[in-house]
Amino acid sequence: MTRMNIEETAEYLKNCRDVHILIHRSPDGDCIGSGYSLQAVLRQLGIRSRVLCSDPIPPRFGYLLSDEEEEHFEPQCVIAVDVADEKLFGTLEETYAGKVDLCIDHHISNLQYADRLMLEGDASAACEVLYKVYRAMGVPFTRQIAMCLYTGMATDTGCFKYSNTTPETHIFTAQIMREFPDIRYDLINREMFTVKSRGQLAAETVMLQNMEYFAEGRITIIWATLDLCRANGVDEKDMEGLTSLGLQPEGVEVGITVREREPGEYKISMRSARDVNVSAICQVFGGGGHVKAAGCTLCGTIESVRVQLLSAVEAAL
Amino acid sequence: MTRMNIEETAEYLKNCRDVHILIHRSPDGDCIGSGYSLQAVLRQLGIRSRVLCSDPIPPRFGYLLSDEEEEHFEPQCVIAVDVADEKLFGTLEETYAGKVDLCIDHHISNLQYADRLMLEGDASAACEVLYKVYRAMGVPFTRQIAMCLYTGMATDTGCFKYSNTTPETHIFTAQIMREFPDIRYDLINREMFTVKSRGQLAAETVMLQNMEYFAEGRITIIWATLDLCRANGVDEKDMEGLTSLGLQPEGVEVGITVREREPGEYKISMRSARDVNVSAICQVFGGGGHVKAAGCTLCGTIESVRVQLLSAVEAAL
Repeated sequence: MTRMNIEETAEYLKNCRDVHILIHRSPDGDCIGSGYSLQAVLRQLGIRSRVLCSDPIPPRFGYLLSDEEEEHFEPQCVIAVDVADEKLFGTLEETYAGKVDLCIDHHISNLQYADRLMLEGDASAACEVLYKVYRAMGVPFTRQIAMCLYTGMATDTGCFKYSNTTPETHIFTAQIMREFPDIRYDLINREMFTVKSRGQLAAETVMLQNMEYFAEGRITIIWATLDLCRANGVDEKDMEGLTSLGLQPEGVEVGITVREREPGEYKISMRSARDVNVSAICQVFGGGGHVKAAGCTLCGTIESVRVQLLSAVEAAL
Repeated sequence: MTRMNIEETAEYLKNCRDVHILIHRSPDGDCIGSGYSLQAVLRQLGIRSRVLCSDPIPPRFGYLLSDEEEEHFEPQCVIAVDVADEKLFGTLEETYAGKVDLCIDHHISNLQYADRLMLEGDASAACEVLYKVYRAMGVPFTRQIAMCLYTGMATDTGCFKYSNTTPETHIFTAQIMREFPDIRYDLINREMFTVKSRGQLAAETVMLQNMEYFAEGRITIIWATLDLCRANGVDEKDMEGLTSLGLQPEGVEVGITVREREPGEYKISMRSARDVNVSAICQVFGGGGHVKAAGCTLCGTIESVRVQLLSAVEAAL
């Protein structure tokens, strides 16, 4: 495995041919923005490419896609963007594992599976790394490239809200806005951060109604049991992205969402508001994740799950 | 009234003495950040000042205040920051109306009541204007000044989300972050945008439960009647800041929140997701406001209020 810098990556991209671009399963704004901006940049150099993902691109990201779809071709070069682990290729893992020529990423946890790695662990988003690569390549930005890069940086930082936001995130965003003043960034942000489906709103209402407070309000637990979901017409998918609801009350340090998957089996999502390491707590239960966002699975009764979670979190507070 | 530019304002501030700094009633992050950063800047030049507001500063803005409190003194100079209209001085209007020497603002609607006006209608926040003034003055930034300016720009733009965000908003933010990398911007943002009191969460739950959809989902109405609020222990104050809840469902163009103030009297808040001018709609009912956020008062029954609102909004769609 060779580590590459921005200039070497730019040079490599200028000389590649017939590229398959891989993004991760359950695609988000950053990997979609990375993949489709890279395709647009390569197209300007006359290099054909396809963006491949094991899951469909959610319709709300439709504005990032290209109208022109390349037909099938055998790849001469495989590039993964925003993918820390080959497992995240999903159903494409079998085809592409061990065959990635270049990975461009910002996850410090990257498993270094590719022949060449352009990794910036301090960057807010893969799109922030790619912004620099494209500038080094000297290709002019198009409106589509600008929307891709903006969306990637905005979504991975919660609209410039989280601790991964860097001065460069803001500077690159400003430069994109100056170059493309007519893009409706406010409407992109509305779509990404404000809009919810009626199902999600129903799920949010149910979850807010069923929030429990512990440890003088420093811990919250939201229970989404099968009975409760059925009674309110809420399905599992509607609850995705709502795992940080429990961090909203003032004074909360750790917010826990418990979703009953099957009777007696609970999927736990744990979020930290400040400095409690929830990854360490979840590891005790055989799970893991990031310092501020982790998960695990527990079995038993509601009462036994509650006792286990509270004793572990209270010990960490 | 004299219009001043950045340099003239900087020069004026360097030469003022014994300053009363006025901010608007119901103070928000931008006027508080403006007022207390200006006090800190003047203090560095040996100029004493006091920040005056008709309402108390909400505790969550406590980190922006100065530890040193000046004793009472007669002002030689009165400066208003982020105040578009002398009416917004609240109880201080009587004392200070017609006596403002300088107003620094970003509201295009500024009524030009001050002797001197430094107005940038395109700036996202008064703090964005002040950033430039302080740089022109050449005073070094302190940690407190940095937190004030960041908070003002972040809060007035919904954390860089709204259409008033400019490239300069991002550039100035990046420069502040570079100069003060140790400030926990993520915790400021959590406090400003994520944290809610239990009362606010209860209000939000009640409002979500009582959302009505009209015009194929393009209009929402949330009813907060006296009965409903009493039954759920929600008070008027808890509902402030929740007037944009009705814009969350996908496809919504106009979100209306109706709060019953007294039996049969309704305070209407109207929010626009995209391009419908809700100020024009509210003007029909004797109200007004901004293009995307306006209000009015209606009297009658729930049914008659609903009919009036829907016919006016449907005509505008």
